[in-house]
Order: sequence, then C-alpha cells, then structure tokens
Amino acid sequence: MYRVDINCDMGESFGAYRMGSDEEILSYVTSANIACGFHAGGPAVMRSTVDMALEKGVAIGAHPGLPDLEGFGRRNMDITPREAYDMVVYQIGALYGFVKASGGRMQHVKPHGALYNMAAKNPGLSEGIAEAVYKVDPELILFGLSGSELVKAGEKIGLRTANEVFADRTYQIDGTLTSRREPDALITDTEQAVHQVVRMVKEKKVYTMQKQDINIQADTVCIHGDGAHALEFARTIRELLRQADVSVQAVGSK
Amino acid sequence: MYRVDINCDMGESFGAYRMGSDEEILSYVTSANIACGFHAGGPAVMRSTVDMALEKGVAIGAHPGLPDLEGFGRRNMDITPREAYDMVVYQIGALYGFVKASGGRMQHVKPHGALYNMAAKNPGLSEGIAEAVYKVDPELILFGLSGSELVKAGEKIGLRTANEVFADRTYQIDGTLTSRREPDALITDTEQAVHQVVRMVKEKKVYTMQKQDINIQADTVCIHGDGAHALEFARTIRELLRQADVSVQAVGSK
Amino acid sequence: MYRVDINCDMGESFGAYRMGSDEEILSYVTSANIACGFHAGGPAVMRSTVDMALEKGVAIGAHPGLPDLEGFGRRNMDITPREAYDMVVYQIGALYGFVKASGGRMQHVKPHGALYNMAAKNPGLSEGIAEAVYKVDPELILFGLSGSELVKAGEKIGLRTANEVFADRTYQIDGTLTSRREPDALITDTEQAVHQVVRMVKEKKVYTMQKQDINIQADTVCIHGDGAHALEFARTIRELLRQADVSVQAVGSK
Amino acid sequence: MYRVDINCDMGESFGAYRMGSDEEILSYVTSANIACGFHAGGPAVMRSTVDMALEKGVAIGAHPGLPDLEGFGRRNMDITPREAYDMVVYQIGALYGFVKASGGRMQHVKPHGALYNMAAKNPGLSEGIAEAVYKVDPELILFGLSGSELVKAGEKIGLRTANEVFADRTYQIDGTLTSRREPDALITDTEQAVHQVVRMVKEKKVYTMQKQDINIQADTVCIHGDGAHALEFARTIRELLRQADVSVQAVGSK
Repeated sequence: MYRVDINCDMGESFGAYRMGSDEEILSYVTSANIACGFHAGGPAVMRSTVDMALEKGVAIGAHPGLPDLEGFGRRNMDITPREAYDMVVYQIGALYGFVKASGGRMQHVKPHGALYNMAAKNPGLSEGIAEAVYKVDPELILFGLSGSELVKAGEKIGLRTANEVFADRTYQIDGTLTSRREPDALITDTEQAVHQVVRMVKEKKVYTMQKQDINIQADTVCIHGDGAHALEFARTIRELLRQADVSVQAVGSK
Repeated sequence: MYRVDINCDMGESFGAYRMGSDEEILSYVTSANIACGFHAGGPAVMRSTVDMALEKGVAIGAHPGLPDLEGFGRRNMDITPREAYDMVVYQIGALYGFVKASGGRMQHVKPHGALYNMAAKNPGLSEGIAEAVYKVDPELILFGLSGSELVKAGEKIGLRTANEVFADRTYQIDGTLTSRREPDALITDTEQAVHQVVRMVKEKKVYTMQKQDINIQADTVCIHGDGAHALEFARTIRELLRQADVSVQAVGSK
Repeated sequence: MYRVDINCDMGESFGAYRMGSDEEILSYVTSANIACGFHAGGPAVMRSTVDMALEKGVAIGAHPGLPDLEGFGRRNMDITPREAYDMVVYQIGALYGFVKASGGRMQHVKPHGALYNMAAKNPGLSEGIAEAVYKVDPELILFGLSGSELVKAGEKIGLRTANEVFADRTYQIDGTLTSRREPDALITDTEQAVHQVVRMVKEKKVYTMQKQDINIQADTVCIHGDGAHALEFARTIRELLRQADVSVQAVGSK
Repeated sequence: MYRVDINCDMGESFGAYRMGSDEEILSYVTSANIACGFHAGGPAVMRSTVDMALEKGVAIGAHPGLPDLEGFGRRNMDITPREAYDMVVYQIGALYGFVKASGGRMQHVKPHGALYNMAAKNPGLSEGIAEAVYKVDPELILFGLSGSELVKAGEKIGLRTANEVFADRTYQIDGTLTSRREPDALITDTEQAVHQVVRMVKEKKVYTMQKQDINIQADTVCIHGDGAHALEFARTIRELLRQADVSVQAVGSK
C-alpha cells in the first residue's frame, strides 16, 4: 500500500492582514505547517490555527522562518548556523506553547522560504536547524526538500525526516526545483501536477526538465493554501490520489 | 526558619546592545526572569542566559512583556485579556524551547513592566495571563506584585503563586508601590532597603508613606541587575539576609 | 458655493499582505492619507501609493500611526507628547522622501487610529503632534476630528487645519463619534450617510444619538477604502454631493 | 593645502539601549552619519543626535541600513535594487524630517554595514541607492568605499561623491578592505593608523597586505564612536592631521 502526507503552510495571516484559506484547506491536508511570527503569523493567529488543526485532526508542525516580516521570509539572509539554531528553537518553542495550551502535540518542523532553500544546499545551516529540532524534542519529524542537505542533517543527528516533494513545480536533473525565475518553473495543469506526485510516490521517479528521469523519495507533498485555485487543487489531488490507491495520511501517523 | 527568594530581570540585552550584568548578578539571585523577545531579549540572548542560569543553579522563569521593543515594554498598551493570553503563551513557549533544548526546567513566569503593572490592578488582564501560564504548564509558579490582582487570578485558576516585594521601593497604605513620578518612590539607602525586606519577610509588615504599617506577604524580592550599584546591592542584601537568619532560596525549591 | 474634501486612508498594504483597493478608490477621493510604516505600509507601498496619487491628481498626506504593526495602530499606547512629536516627525519625513523623489508635494497630515483618537481628547498629545507638523513644514494642513483638541492645537500653533467628519458614523451630543462598541455606531444605509454629510457641509449641523442637532464644521469627509461596499459607497457619495451642488475638491486646492 | 573630512556613525542607540559616545565624539568629527531606525536608532535618538550635531556645527548625513535591528544591519540580505531604492528613500526622508524640524540641512548619505559592503561590489544595488539619494535631493553627497561601485554609481547619476577610507583597517591590493575574519584586518596601533590616513590624503597611496602600494582617493575618513579607545583615537587623529598640515573639514564645506 502506497502512502503519502499532504502538507500546507498556514497561519500566515498577521494582525489585521489576512492570507490564505486556512480553515478550508485544512479539510484536504494531513499536516499543517504553522508560521511562528518571524516571517508571518503571530500569537493570535498561531492560537486559532492550532485550534483549527486540532479540531480537524490535522497534524501540527512549526514553520520557522527568517526574521523578515516585510519580505515574508523569502529574502536570503547571511545568518550563521548558530543564529539558525537560535531562531528555530525560539519559534518551535513559541508554537509549542500554543500546542501545549490546547492539549495537542507537535508532529514536525518545516523551515520556511529562504531558510528552507538556503538549508537545502548548506550543510552548516542544516546542522544548526536539525540540532535545534532535536534538542527541543527528538521525537519531532524534520521536513526538508527531498534529498537535500536538510534531510541529511536530520538523519545524521538522529531525527526522523520527511522528504518533501512539490506537486506544481518542475525538477532539475540534480533533484532541485527549477528556479521560479525560469519560465517553466510551475506546473499549472492540475492533472499533470497530480500525475507527477503519483509517479513520485509509486515509482519513486520524477521526469526532469532535462528530459530524463531521476530517483526521488516522496514522503510528503507540499500544496499551497492561497491563490485562486488552491482549494480546487487540494480537492483534486486528494481525489486523484485516492483513485490511484495512494493513502493520504500524516507522516507521523501509525 | 524564614525564607525568601531573590529574583532579578535579565536577558534584556538585544542584538548588538548590552544591558545588565547578568553573569555577575546570577551569583546573588535564586530566580532569573528571562526576557522573551517582546520588550527586550531575543533568541541568542535567551539561549546564553538560560545556559548561564542552569550552570549557576538559578531557577529559570519567563519574563513576558508587551510587544514594544522601543519602549522597553514600559508603556501601557490597551490590550484585551485575549491578547494578553496570546502574548504570554507565545513568550513562555519561546523560552521553554531554550530551556528544553538545554535540558533544564522552567520554574516560574513573571510579567514585565507595563504588563505587570496593568495586570496588578486589572482582573481581566490578570485572568488572561494566569490562564496562559496554567494552560502551558500548571506546575509553573506565577510571580505578581504582593496582594495584587495577578496573584489573585493565579490562585483562582489553581496556580502556585509568589507574592513579590521590592527592596528599593516605598509602599503606599493600599499596598501599591509609590509611583516613580513621586519624589519618595525609591529607597536609595541600602541598609534601609534591606531592613524593609527583612521586616516584610519576618514580620509580614511594611511601613508605608502614610506612616502606618500594613500587612504584606513576601515570597520573593525583586532586585535590579543594572545601574551602578546593582552588584554591590545584591551582595549586601544576601549577606544581611543571612545575618538575619533568613534563608535565600528559589520559590520552587523544596 | 459649498465645497468639501473627500479623504481616504491608503497605502496600508504591507510586504506580501494586501489591504484596500487603493487604485480604484483614488478615482473618487481628493485627499489620500498614506500610511508611513508604523501601523501599516512600508517603503515599497509608500512609493507606489505616492506615484498612483500623483498620477490621479489626488492630494497627498502623511498618515502617521503608533508603532504597533500587529495591532494596526488601533491600540491606545501611553506615549508622551515628546514621543508623539518624534514619531510624527519621523513618519512625515519618511513619506516626504517619496513625495520629493517623485516630484510631488505633500498637502496634509492626518494621524491614524489610536493616535488620532487619543489626540482628539488630549491637548498635550495634540500639541506634540501639531508642533511636529509645523516644524517639518508650516504649510502642511493638519486633519483632525471636527472640533477636537487636535484641530485646536493646530490652530494655536499657526497651522491651517481641516475639520474631519465621518459619513458612516453616528455622533454624540458632545461632538464625538459613537464608540464602535455601541450597536448604533455605524450608519450602514448609504443614502442616510450621504444625507448626513450634505447636511454637515451645507447647514453645519449633525443630528446626534441624543435626538438633538449640534453644530459641526465639515472641511473633509473620511471614507473607507476596504470592505465590500467601499467603492460603491465612494461612487455614490461623489454623485450625490454633485447633485446637492457641493463641490468636491482637496482642502489645499485653490 | 591638503584637506580631509572625518566622519563617524552615530545615533545608534535604540530605546533604552545606549551605544557609542555621540556627544563626545562630535567634538572631533566633521561629518555625522546618523542611523535612521532600520539597523539602529529611532525617532527620539534621531532628534537628539541631529540637535547635538547642529549645536556642534558638525555636518549631518543619513546612515540608512538594512531592516535588521537584531543583526545591527550587518547581515547581508538578498534585496533587489528597487528594494534598496525604497529603503534608502524612506530613511533619508525620515532623518530629513528631523533636520528640517530643527532648521538644519543634510549634507550627505552613507549606507551602513551590509548595505554599504554589498553596494561596494554590486553595480545594480549601487544604482538603486544612488538614484534614491539623487531623487530625494541632488545636492546630497554620496559617501562610499573609495573606488567602489557605489561611488561610481553616484558619479554616473550626477551626484557629488566622497571616497571613504578607513584609518584602522588594512587594505588589499584590489582596493578592498581586508575581511574582518582575517587576523590582520585591523590596525590597532594609533600612530600607524594615522600614518596610513596621512599618506592616503597627501600621497593618494596606501600600502596593502600584498606589500605593494596602490592608488587611493581619500575624501573622508571613517572613525568609530564606540569601543574603549574611540575618543582617544579621535583626539589623536585630529592632532596628528593638524601637525601634518592636513585641514580637517566637512566634505560639503566651502
């Protein structure tokens, strides 16, 4: 039996600003990556998002980002592994406060945006992040780009990891995502996107921009919670995975 | 045998900015209130302060404040009890991350500055704060101004509380501190300050500005970590309490 | 010939977060109050909003707020007149940079949210704000709640002022707005709202919740740029003012 | 007659946090680079620093930095030229508010920390910064590392520029500063530091770590306002420049 997790970034509203359709998207995902106040989110949003996830039975993860609210954590910053460690411990802890206050448990940690992308290629940063996760709670599962340095650092320190793949992004022959600056970075056709996911899950392969297959491990698929078609896409991918006999469940579930 | 705790706010440096003499003051106090990044502090400072406190065997507490870094959390803000709840859960959690990462445990929570002062008189805010502490961890001890609404709210929800007194502040007949705007707010004479503490601990009384004694409960004494004479004052109060047969130990110690 | 200005808060998006329909609403207003980065907005948004206003020939004003991004500048903070002075000088200056860089000129200053509301009743705060405006540029026009302390402080220091009224808010017999916490604070019927404005402009009277008229000066009307019906309301008020022979033009226009 | 400007970063205190000895150092410098609230400083500090500089007759400049208060603007961030433009316009404007409110004028702009260093090598960023300065006020003088891309971009757009040299840093054969990560980055001997400055001013040469002279233009020398020996160093460099017949005056003075 094949299985895969579907995760989505959420809790990215801030103060008077709304972002995403968290409540609706929670019906379609099995893991929620909740922003922790550095790149987005904040105390009130974290509380309500944790509570919604618990109510819907969706596994909760911390989604720590760079301290760059105005840039939404998407601008690379030249931070040290120690700074990465500190900011990840802080943010996991902050979300943990709400999870504990609401009687839940935290399943995973997935770095956000530029922190995720920098860590994917940078062993030092990845070790800082993995150590932060491990020291706060060695039972936490570390999410990282499939095959990346972050996943390697997690395994090395003894964490359970989840290799993340993307439904709507194209891949390069070295396993990285095609840069968003390239014209072919995005897969806009839903069927094609789902097909790519199904193949990654079942055959452990993805067809790259270099017209060649590579091996890939797909433990969890990232989908997006904002944008015009987010909900429809979420609904479709769940349905098509079901038809393909792929069970959708949280990484940490038995 | 009489006993009292000595607490001090610390971890209030921020980025390139230094404040206080945390390492030295840790030799004289039994409880450390560590800033959590809202009014002061930040991830790196929280980590190093937690580690220093653990090394010196000083009990650790969260010191959550208002989100007002520029005002150092000293400006009243018109927040709701729900907002107080959210910001306290967040900040306790963030510090908890570092405490857990370093293998320690958290003893207490003491709100900072304007949050502390507003809560002292405001039952609604105090309930928000007390609920936050209780839900994150019902074993935590809530520090509040002796006899204040905050202490009452803590007791009501079932938390252990610590009534805080001040060595270097004068008292009003209603048990509140004399406002810093008044000329006689501060006790600058060390002997007089210590005498006031010893009397609060042993006789449970304090002589007020209205030339009358009132009853007061003194579980923990707040001293300050910055200023020219902070370290000398800390040393002196420890020594004089010893001479007065008052044992100095953390509130949460057996 | 009667005349009135229509103003609207804008430039309140922040980073990845969108708020308001600035481009559309600019077709209906004569004065734009542009957020300056403390309660909302930021460098990129300020630039693009200034440029849009210049393009549409709408007069530009600074809209300084409290340093409370998460609370959108709506939570009262206990600041001193000196702090008010400093934060208003800073924010006017920051917007002035963009206005000058784009070859425009600034017409007015209107404080935002809690700063506006606190100043309306507080002569000290109002003097701090009025002094800030006057010292940066004595030609600027200060917008304040009609009849408020802010308008008085502006007049006292020698600024030109604009008494602001609200189309969709009800009034108390003392000239203040009915608190939003009250059930009857808002006028949701567009015709009634416009009728109130026309009467304030032409008869200098408003009918209060105490079922009695009071005198009121209406130099500028505030309308809102977000919400489902903002654009339709803006269109309607312009049209109905035209039908009532009230000329709509910027306060500072000849 | 030889001449040179001496500049110093200041106004870098923040809220309750003190940094530098601004008042004292102002007696020895001719140009003050005042932080604008992004990497350090803030409204109150900007006002008092502007007022002190005016009182002491020191030329005023804006010292815009990256939006990274916790990192003191020293961590590289991957910003676009447009983002650089926006943040520089904003910060020049903000300081301009205080300069205008106090009846002074602004002489120059010098980017801070990582923004300064990134711009030195990056033509695109430098063009964004130079355009910001030029558009706000084409009379402003742009300070940049001697011979850097920032100086070139300033000249290209038509700004007057000032080539900045460092007294206490060693140089590489390509004209860049030796990285602070290298052991020989700093010149700790005051006489040697001053000698290097005198030679740069009079002979337009500097001896590099590669044991070879290179040509260098020295319009302004940067000294530091904090650290144990800052004041003594400032005093010494002024005296030794005088003895060497080098006149010390602000770049913009006649």
